[in-house]
Amino acid sequence: MTLYLNLAELLGSRIEQGLYRPGQRLPSVRALSVEHGVSLSTVQQAYRMLEDNGLVSPRPKSGYFVAEDRQLPALPAISRPAQRPVDISQWEQVLELVRSTPHPDVIQLGRGMPDIDSPTLKPLLRSLAQISRRMDMPGLYYDNIHGNVQLREQIARLMLDSGCRLGTADLVVTTGCHEALSCSIRAVCEPGDIVAVDSPSFHGAMQTLKGLGMKALEIPTDPITGISLEALELALEQWPIKLIQITPNCNNPLGYIMPEARKKALLTLAQRYDVAILEDDVYGDLAYTYPRPSTVKSFDDDGRVLLCSSFSKTLAPGLRVGWVAPGRYLERVLHMKYISTGCTACQPQLAIADFIAEGHYQPHLRRMRSQYQRARDQMSDWVTRYFPPGTRASRPQGGFMLWVELPESFDTLRLNRALLEQGVQIAVGSIFSASGKYRNCLRMNFAARPTPQIEAAVRKVGETAMRLLQAELHGG
Amino acid sequence: MTLYLNLAELLGSRIEQGLYRPGQRLPSVRALSVEHGVSLSTVQQAYRMLEDNGLVSPRPKSGYFVAEDRQLPALPAISRPAQRPVDISQWEQVLELVRSTPHPDVIQLGRGMPDIDSPTLKPLLRSLAQISRRMDMPGLYYDNIHGNVQLREQIARLMLDSGCRLGTADLVVTTGCHEALSCSIRAVCEPGDIVAVDSPSFHGAMQTLKGLGMKALEIPTDPITGISLEALELALEQWPIKLIQITPNCNNPLGYIMPEARKKALLTLAQRYDVAILEDDVYGDLAYTYPRPSTVKSFDDDGRVLLCSSFSKTLAPGLRVGWVAPGRYLERVLHMKYISTGCTACQPQLAIADFIAEGHYQPHLRRMRSQYQRARDQMSDWVTRYFPPGTRASRPQGGFMLWVELPESFDTLRLNRALLEQGVQIAVGSIFSASGKYRNCLRMNFAARPTPQIEAAVRKVGETAMRLLQAELHGG
Ligand SMILES: Cc1ncc(COP(=O)(O)O)c(C=O)c1O
Ligand SMILES: Cc1ncc(COP(=O)(O)O)c(C=O)c1O
Repeated sequence: MTLYLNLAELLGSRIEQGLYRPGQRLPSVRALSVEHGVSLSTVQQAYRMLEDNGLVSPRPKSGYFVAEDRQLPALPAISRPAQRPVDISQWEQVLELVRSTPHPDVIQLGRGMPDIDSPTLKPLLRSLAQISRRMDMPGLYYDNIHGNVQLREQIARLMLDSGCRLGTADLVVTTGCHEALSCSIRAVCEPGDIVAVDSPSFHGAMQTLKGLGMKALEIPTDPITGISLEALELALEQWPIKLIQITPNCNNPLGYIMPEARKKALLTLAQRYDVAILEDDVYGDLAYTYPRPSTVKSFDDDGRVLLCSSFSKTLAPGLRVGWVAPGRYLERVLHMKYISTGCTACQPQLAIADFIAEGHYQPHLRRMRSQYQRARDQMSDWVTRYFPPGTRASRPQGGFMLWVELPESFDTLRLNRALLEQGVQIAVGSIFSASGKYRNCLRMNFAARPTPQIEAAVRKVGETAMRLLQAELHGG
Repeated sequence: MTLYLNLAELLGSRIEQGLYRPGQRLPSVRALSVEHGVSLSTVQQAYRMLEDNGLVSPRPKSGYFVAEDRQLPALPAISRPAQRPVDISQWEQVLELVRSTPHPDVIQLGRGMPDIDSPTLKPLLRSLAQISRRMDMPGLYYDNIHGNVQLREQIARLMLDSGCRLGTADLVVTTGCHEALSCSIRAVCEPGDIVAVDSPSFHGAMQTLKGLGMKALEIPTDPITGISLEALELALEQWPIKLIQITPNCNNPLGYIMPEARKKALLTLAQRYDVAILEDDVYGDLAYTYPRPSTVKSFDDDGRVLLCSSFSKTLAPGLRVGWVAPGRYLERVLHMKYISTGCTACQPQLAIADFIAEGHYQPHLRRMRSQYQRARDQMSDWVTRYFPPGTRASRPQGGFMLWVELPESFDTLRLNRALLEQGVQIAVGSIFSASGKYRNCLRMNFAARPTPQIEAAVRKVGETAMRLLQAELHGG
């Protein structure tokens, strides 16, 4: 099974990278079979999968061709947030989002929920049930403060793919990535310190800076290459920055993967100005290309990178299992972890450790990656079709979030209010900024397999936006 | 089943309160049967239970008598900690304790682990397994930031017994009591603020103050009536105290229950000086008398009490489910909760809600309360028997912790080191002080049903202490 998937991923990434152009003929089934030493039917299966993903199209008697370019929304421009440290606002909007409970009558396009319906996730539920039945009741004890050691072994193994060599003693299990972030920030910074952040940026991280009394300095960020190193360097010259906080892989909300050379350059910059880096890799395993992209942490030779992640996006958020590799800040992070929750719930940790050890993690990832990639294309098409002309949108390289930019004057808070009456929820752009920028933007989740209901919901978003825009034009 | 247990609890508490004196004859089986409208065999069962608990002894042909006073260790004197705000130390000792993992060769008398082997806990494990098998997978979603609403309903019901009228909207579920404490402290205080604490005091709360940059002002505390209100008032006059942090019910480590009048007086004091109260009630449901004691929160009419608790001591700590009723600080606590862990793991919350809703909680508590009470007596006897003459010990009114005080010059850090080689772990006294006092004290857990192994471990503690003391006397 893995053979055709591997081949499909390889071909897919070559197409994505532009090695084959739209309309160009792809290597024949026979040629690929010889080149990769696999059977003809394996190649055919790979091509069929790429066809399902909309990347290639067959032409009778002539073989496979790269699909003609779909009409995609234009990319947002590089962000231009206020370039001075600010106190963070927007808690009311975030609270509204996180107070919401799943509801059958509301299509929640706003939250960071992965698809949990895949059959590849079933062994995890089985594991959870089995642990509850074990006579030694391992789920009921206080855990070691570092977290379960079997789980840490599995995390260390997984992170090899991102280029990191970690031992179990380098890792601390946390209650979701949230706890990894807040322990890390508190381990490095004091209240009042300045933290440089990519922008737009995950609202949870913003609110953590707010709650801990830090100031955020939002750095211009490119929707393809990530945080602007030039702007960051200027900022480092100008301000006493303590920490750089970034999500370089499958960024939330922009979806880019920072090129490796820029990751290295970022680290060099951090070393030159002697600041720490908080790297949030929560979507890193969900990059559409395989092998997964490297982490900044993998180049870190003096322990200044705190790598934070969780299983919330790859498996399920209700488990609340995350982790941090805090480098030279390990002792401080342990103290912060202890006072934050004492230790993390045991049963979910054990179940995840089993799930990975039994080999279920990679097949699950493969399936989700390709599902999300297909759903991304579908969602982009819907935006082209249903949103006002001139709408811009991100081109995610992983994960399941689309960032949409409407005309400058537009207010997505009003849009969200109008949508809630129609049973649709989005995430408003302003929560992704420390200073309430991006009011004309929104983020939509495309994790769930596309259905007519979801299409109808996206259509409502686009059409309601159109209506509000027109009302605006006519002085409404 | 409940009838005889209720009767046993009633008689037991009358004896404990001194209504019947040691050696005194108790009412006849017939008289009690008439008085309480229960069968003769119910009364006999109740007496047999009290006999098991060591509270009564039968004399052939004459009926039941209050057991002769056991020879108990003297109580520790009221504590006299340094009366100025201090920065908190002792993290290394705490880390050593919380880094430890359960190990078959070590008797862990040091940690705050309840007994999880009771058959009355089995339905909880069944619930956990059932939730994993539900088709709608409720354990996998992001929870509402307030926590699961069914669980909050059950908590509100339970807290009626402590005199609190809480609605679900007044409660926030947390990842253990640890998170309840740290969110509460951060909701009220800024770094540098002074917090008044009972002393000795739970090390986790101490370390939280440390990690958040607060100063602790340790207030003299009586081993029977709790924090000295006189000393507290002086301190409130003298220092700009922001918060009073206390564990008035079944205190950790001293085991006292603060009398209700003193709870009310404490609240009046807090109102007069306009400070908030953080009330940790984590052992409140484990008071040996029934109904359980009231909380300070139950008298709170202006929302200044933040009541924190968890199911770690009553059910099992590995579940990591706690909660806070933050009064007027609700909005701030929600923000702190959001940045601390986002939300709490779902499956344990659902399992606990089921366990309580199906009526399993009270029978479990009843059983644990009487087991712990018996174990307390056993542990006190062992201390009398095996510890150096002059050893003092607490007289816990609930929970499963004994506080032991050795001669002034003694150093329990050395004792702990000597014990680890013998496969016994204790909690050293200094971690219960902000300033490293109580070096001559230690805390032992008596949750597990007494066994020869545990007796041997306690004996090792006592005899090793004796040996170290003698070496000291002879200038060693
Ligand atoms: C970039 C990023 N980091 C962290 C998190 C939080 O992850 P967790 O649910 O594991 O706390 C999210 C979830 O929305 C996220 O998008
Ligand atoms: C007084 C007190 N409060 C809080 C806690 C922590 O409880 P949890 O395990 O729910 O975080 C403990 C546990 O040792 C305790 O003794």
